[in-house]
Formats: sequence, structure tokens, C-alpha cells
Amino acid sequence: MCPHSRFVRLILGELGVEHDLVEERVWERRREFLVLNPAGQTPVLVEDEGSAVPGACIAAEWLDETRGLALGEHRLLPEAPQERIEVRRLVEWFNVKFFEEVSLHLVHEKAYKRFMPADVGGGPPNPAGIRAARANIRYHMQYIGHLVGRRHWLAGERLTYADLAAAAHLSVTDYLGDTPWDEDQRAKEWYARVKSRPSFRALLADRIAGISPPDSYADPDF
Amino acid sequence: MCPHSRFVRLILGELGVEHDLVEERVWERRREFLVLNPAGQTPVLVEDEGSAVPGACIAAEWLDETRGLALGEHRLLPEAPQERIEVRRLVEWFNVKFFEEVSLHLVHEKAYKRFMPADVGGGPPNPAGIRAARANIRYHMQYIGHLVGRRHWLAGERLTYADLAAAAHLSVTDYLGDTPWDEDQRAKEWYARVKSRPSFRALLADRIAGISPPDSYADPDF
Repeated sequence: MCPHSRFVRLILGELGVEHDLVEERVWERRREFLVLNPAGQTPVLVEDEGSAVPGACIAAEWLDETRGLALGEHRLLPEAPQERIEVRRLVEWFNVKFFEEVSLHLVHEKAYKRFMPADVGGGPPNPAGIRAARANIRYHMQYIGHLVGRRHWLAGERLTYADLAAAAHLSVTDYLGDTPWDEDQRAKEWYARVKSRPSFRALLADRIAGISPPDSYADPDF
Repeated sequence: MCPHSRFVRLILGELGVEHDLVEERVWERRREFLVLNPAGQTPVLVEDEGSAVPGACIAAEWLDETRGLALGEHRLLPEAPQERIEVRRLVEWFNVKFFEEVSLHLVHEKAYKRFMPADVGGGPPNPAGIRAARANIRYHMQYIGHLVGRRHWLAGERLTYADLAAAAHLSVTDYLGDTPWDEDQRAKEWYARVKSRPSFRALLADRIAGISPPDSYADPDF
């Protein structure tokens, strides 16, 4: 349920890179995991040759530098520095701002706290956090609608990391039943396009113990 | 006093790029500023040809892509993808983790709140925030010492963005009298080396109305 891990999984899917998933309960602060990422956060991408790439944005840059070029004009982080500004701005928008205002609260309250022991913050969800997230997500839906109202994809005419970051976070809020699809029709249509991509399939097949997504979660015509 | 702006100013200094500074009081949420950066945060780098580059990390990537190559082996974001992982990891460490645990609290409580109107959160400093930051900064000093105990600079044998990000944040906590230089001698020696660079001079000459730095602030042999 970590939206940043989902962002990297979508990139790997678009790049066609086979990978294994390892669940990490970051609150356990496992020593072996802290060696891979001293900041103690997911995701960490571990390459066959042993490199550990900590953090979603760093993994995205690494994957662009080591595989992205091969995609030519379908490169997910475009070649031109000017276009890269807008892609990176939106990636940060969702990975930082949307996360802090929306997805962090929902995932933490509704999912992580079920699995965390009480002494590190586990327990029943705090309704105030969920309420705040549900209020905040509305203007993000409008912002997505505003962007795709004048462009085909979030950062321009081609699919980029910006779309994958936004969709990764929305896939989590959607799983938890908290994405207000009636807020903006353009945002909904954009998400339907991203959701139909083969790279999305693994995310739609995921199930978390004890939490069922709404029926529409895996339906491309939701 | 924005540590992220100081990071970009240090990069511009190292690159020898002349620039003007414009103070932005982000809590005023000026419409013209929100056009430059919808996230409403400093810094924003505005180029002569009109491009606005929002956010410190995005500006750092942009400056590397448009000017960094010219520095050859002194490039501040190294060429090799493997080395870039470590530089970006540490930039994020200071710009996100150190910021949230230390510099945000100190700057907000001791500086910004003096200038903010009461209705957006201005007022006297909250001692709890300052206390937490003063406790947290100690392990960051030890971490810097640990890193420069086995490398000449933070991310390796050459000066990189990692050093500039760390030093930008420490320059702010130092101005506010809250950097515990006795915590780790190696960290202090590393900072003395960064502080002696010509790119640092403009930062050391800055003065904030109503807040005087300690005498040692601008002294390279502090």
C-alpha cells in the first residue's frame, strides 16, 4: 500500500523490467533494511548487481539514466531540460504534497495502523486524519482535471513519470474507497486511461489482508 | 533564511552564475508567485528567458543539465549513475529529513513567526519545537562526522550537491545559534572547509532584521 513503491512498480512495468516484491514493515526498523536505506523508508530498489537505490524519486532518476534512454520518444522523463522541469514538478507534487495532504493519512490510518504494534502507533484509525484527507483530495482531483483539460497527459502530450506518480497515489486512495470520482470527469477519464495500461495490472491484482477494495477498483470502466 | 533557497544560491555560486535575490514571504500566497510555483514554496529560480524552475531539487537538476556538464570532473552531480544515487540520497536526507526534524522548526519558530501576521500563525516561538530540533540535530552532526570520517566530502572524494545541501541547512541553524559544533569534530572540520569556499560568502554576509548571528557565524576559523 505504499504509494511511492507503487510509483516505482509502475515505472518498472512501463520499462518491462521483471522484479520481485519484498514486503517491508518499516516501523520494525530492521537493521538489514536500514543498511539499504538509512532513512528507513520504502521503496528501495535492489539491482541484481547489488546496488540499492533508496527512495522513489531517486529510483525514478536511476531507472531513467540506466534504462530510460532506450525508450526513445516514449522516455518517461523527457529529454529536454525544459520539459523535465514540469515532469519533476508534478512528480514532487504527488509524492510530497498529495502524500502529506492525502495518501499518507489514509494509508496510515486505514492500513498501516492495523499491522503496527500499539507501542509504535498501531491501533484504530483516527477519524480526524481520514476526514482531512477526504477534504484535501477534492482540490487535487480538480487540479488533475485542470491539467488534463489542456493537455493529453498530466505533464504534456506524452505519458511521463508525472502520470505514474499521480496514478500510484490515486490507486491507493481508490483501493481504500476514498477517491471522489464524481469530483472531476476529466480526472476520471485520465485515470481510466492510465489504469488500462498493462503496467497497472499487478497493482490492480494486489489485495491487502483484511481490507477489500471497492468492486470498481480493478474495473477499467469504473 | 530558507535553507532550500540557500542550497540553490550555493550551487549558483559554485557555477559562477550571477543572480538577483527576491524575497518572497510565502505565507502571503501572492498570486504572481503561485503562477511560478503552484506549490507556493521557495525557492523558485527564474531564468532570463523566462523559465521558472520551482523547488530546490528541481533547480539543482536543471542547473546540472544546463550548466553542470561544463564543470567536467568538478561537476556537482557526478556523471556516473551509481555515484548520483549517493549524492541524491544525501541531498534528500538534508532537504527533507534534516529539514523536517531540525531546520524547519528552528527557522519557523525563531525567524518566520516574527514576520508572519498572527492570523496565519505568526507570534512568539514555541519552545517545544525548538527543543525537539536541538535534540534531533545531534544525531545529524554525528552522521555527517561518520560520513566524512571515511570520505573527504559527504558523498565521496569530491565536493557535490550533498555538501552544499547539508551546509545550506547548517548555515541556517548556525545563524540561529543552534548548531552544536562540539558534537563531532570531523563534522566541524568538514563545515569549515565548505564555509571557506567563495560560493559561501554571500550567505555569510546576509543579515536578518532583528536577529543577529553569533560572532562565529561568518568566521571560517570558528
